[in-house]
Amino acid sequence: MASSLIPPQPVIYLVEPFGGSIRRQNANIAHVYWDDAAVTRGDGIFETLLIHDGAPVNLAKHLARFRRSAEALDLPDPGVDHWVKATREAVADYYRERGEIDDTSAEAKCVWTMTRGRETTGVPTAWLTVRPVDPLLLRQRETGVKTVTAPRGYTITSGATAAPWLKVGAKTLNYAASMAALRWARKHGCDDVIYVDHEDGRVLEATTSTVIIVRKDKKLRTPAPGSEILAGTTQQAIFEYAAEQGWRCKAKDLYVDDLLSAESVWLVSSVRKAVRVTELDGRVLSEPGRDADIRELVELALLSQRDV
Amino acid sequence: MASSLIPPQPVIYLVEPFGGSIRRQNANIAHVYWDDAAVTRGDGIFETLLIHDGAPVNLAKHLARFRRSAEALDLPDPGVDHWVKATREAVADYYRERGEIDDTSAEAKCVWTMTRGRETTGVPTAWLTVRPVDPLLLRQRETGVKTVTAPRGYTITSGATAAPWLKVGAKTLNYAASMAALRWARKHGCDDVIYVDHEDGRVLEATTSTVIIVRKDKKLRTPAPGSEILAGTTQQAIFEYAAEQGWRCKAKDLYVDDLLSAESVWLVSSVRKAVRVTELDGRVLSEPGRDADIRELVELALLSQRDV
Repeated sequence: MASSLIPPQPVIYLVEPFGGSIRRQNANIAHVYWDDAAVTRGDGIFETLLIHDGAPVNLAKHLARFRRSAEALDLPDPGVDHWVKATREAVADYYRERGEIDDTSAEAKCVWTMTRGRETTGVPTAWLTVRPVDPLLLRQRETGVKTVTAPRGYTITSGATAAPWLKVGAKTLNYAASMAALRWARKHGCDDVIYVDHEDGRVLEATTSTVIIVRKDKKLRTPAPGSEILAGTTQQAIFEYAAEQGWRCKAKDLYVDDLLSAESVWLVSSVRKAVRVTELDGRVLSEPGRDADIRELVELALLSQRDV
Repeated sequence: MASSLIPPQPVIYLVEPFGGSIRRQNANIAHVYWDDAAVTRGDGIFETLLIHDGAPVNLAKHLARFRRSAEALDLPDPGVDHWVKATREAVADYYRERGEIDDTSAEAKCVWTMTRGRETTGVPTAWLTVRPVDPLLLRQRETGVKTVTAPRGYTITSGATAAPWLKVGAKTLNYAASMAALRWARKHGCDDVIYVDHEDGRVLEATTSTVIIVRKDKKLRTPAPGSEILAGTTQQAIFEYAAEQGWRCKAKDLYVDDLLSAESVWLVSSVRKAVRVTELDGRVLSEPGRDADIRELVELALLSQRDV
């Protein structure tokens, strides 16, 4: 039994690149150096996975995106086996240390990080953490979130005016602007920001999640991923499963009016799962009376992607 | 005398916020935690200072910009005295440990960093490092740099379409895109990229420096700082000093043609000082025969800003 007097510590594993060692890192000891590219330049990639019932959810999609992110940033391929092994070991440690070895029903959050590494070595720094899901997100799954739309403040140029070195679809550590957006939303009594294109008003994504709308007659819609919309692993899992259940699922341009006229609007991400948007720019989005069905759909979709 | 067998170590000082302690940190021991906002979100600010003749150059301007950056990012004011004191102590250590206590003619590079801190504490993490100037930059001061123009790949929207939480003029840790641009330039046989606006072709800035052009009749020009152009401390120091010496200095829109027709084009930054652009998009920019004069102007401008 874990003592309740000791606050739970995250489990950290260092994952040495190029087939090196996987080893536990004491969470009370810093392991990132002053000259790491993550620290000096925000130069690295990450993935956030949900651990459900003792196993990672949507593992294949996270692995695929992690590798795509590395490629887009000209980082070495992080590989697969190493990360899977480290994740399993860390998850086992996590539940054992909480005395929950036979009760892994509590969800956890696992984050993979790989940076360009120390300036002095040039070898990527990589590690993963496993820790409890943020209580705020657990609460939001129940209460939903109040959101406000706003332009993102910057646009990625594409086509002939694209920068040749910027590849889209990478999940990088450059999230300071999104964090600023979240702080701004909270100051204004909201929980999150849904970005809209500053020119044509297209709905893009929320600060750290994908937008999905539910329409009558079992239809699901999400904005098509591209240079301004990260392809969401959770959204993909939901659409794949829902399609099998007879839903008609499409990625297409959405506008604020589409959100207002939808049966319900959801923000989805790995650890958040699905939270309903209860307010959009001050307008209450009424409860459609089918929240439970949608939640169950999401739950089953994620379980179908659980890696056992 | 420092032993030549021991590779020089950077001098690192931790600078506790809110008037806490200033203390030396062993450069061989990591001090950044896995949950620091710099690591997880690239969420922090920095300044790079030149140490010349044993003292920081352009200190007042760096302090002012550091504080502006903090304000723009909603970080606590880093203050002044603490940073000045820590910088002096670190610089003294640096020269003493190199056996150069009586010969501080060698330049050094000092970087201040302040992050939003650990998720678990919410207290900013701050430190500074002092180390030798990158030999590549020293070489480029002599040889100049080959550059290529390219769109930045993203644009900061302003006016009615600006994101209300994005404040311009902050020098943040989100430099991954610039590093990608530099890697791309090097792959293509160049040293640096000069960003141009993807719509109107205005010259913006280089990846980590400010563009200055020299025109006949003692004129200096630089693109006016704004949402896409960071106000350069070195450029400001040069313009202030040059104006006193009878130069006519102006910040105004510049285009690639202005660069091609200039007497000379320079990239300026604290540690780089001034490097001449010898090639732009494959066109050789001829040596105007007055490089030495410009270099001397820059040198004197920086010395006039040296803090003694």
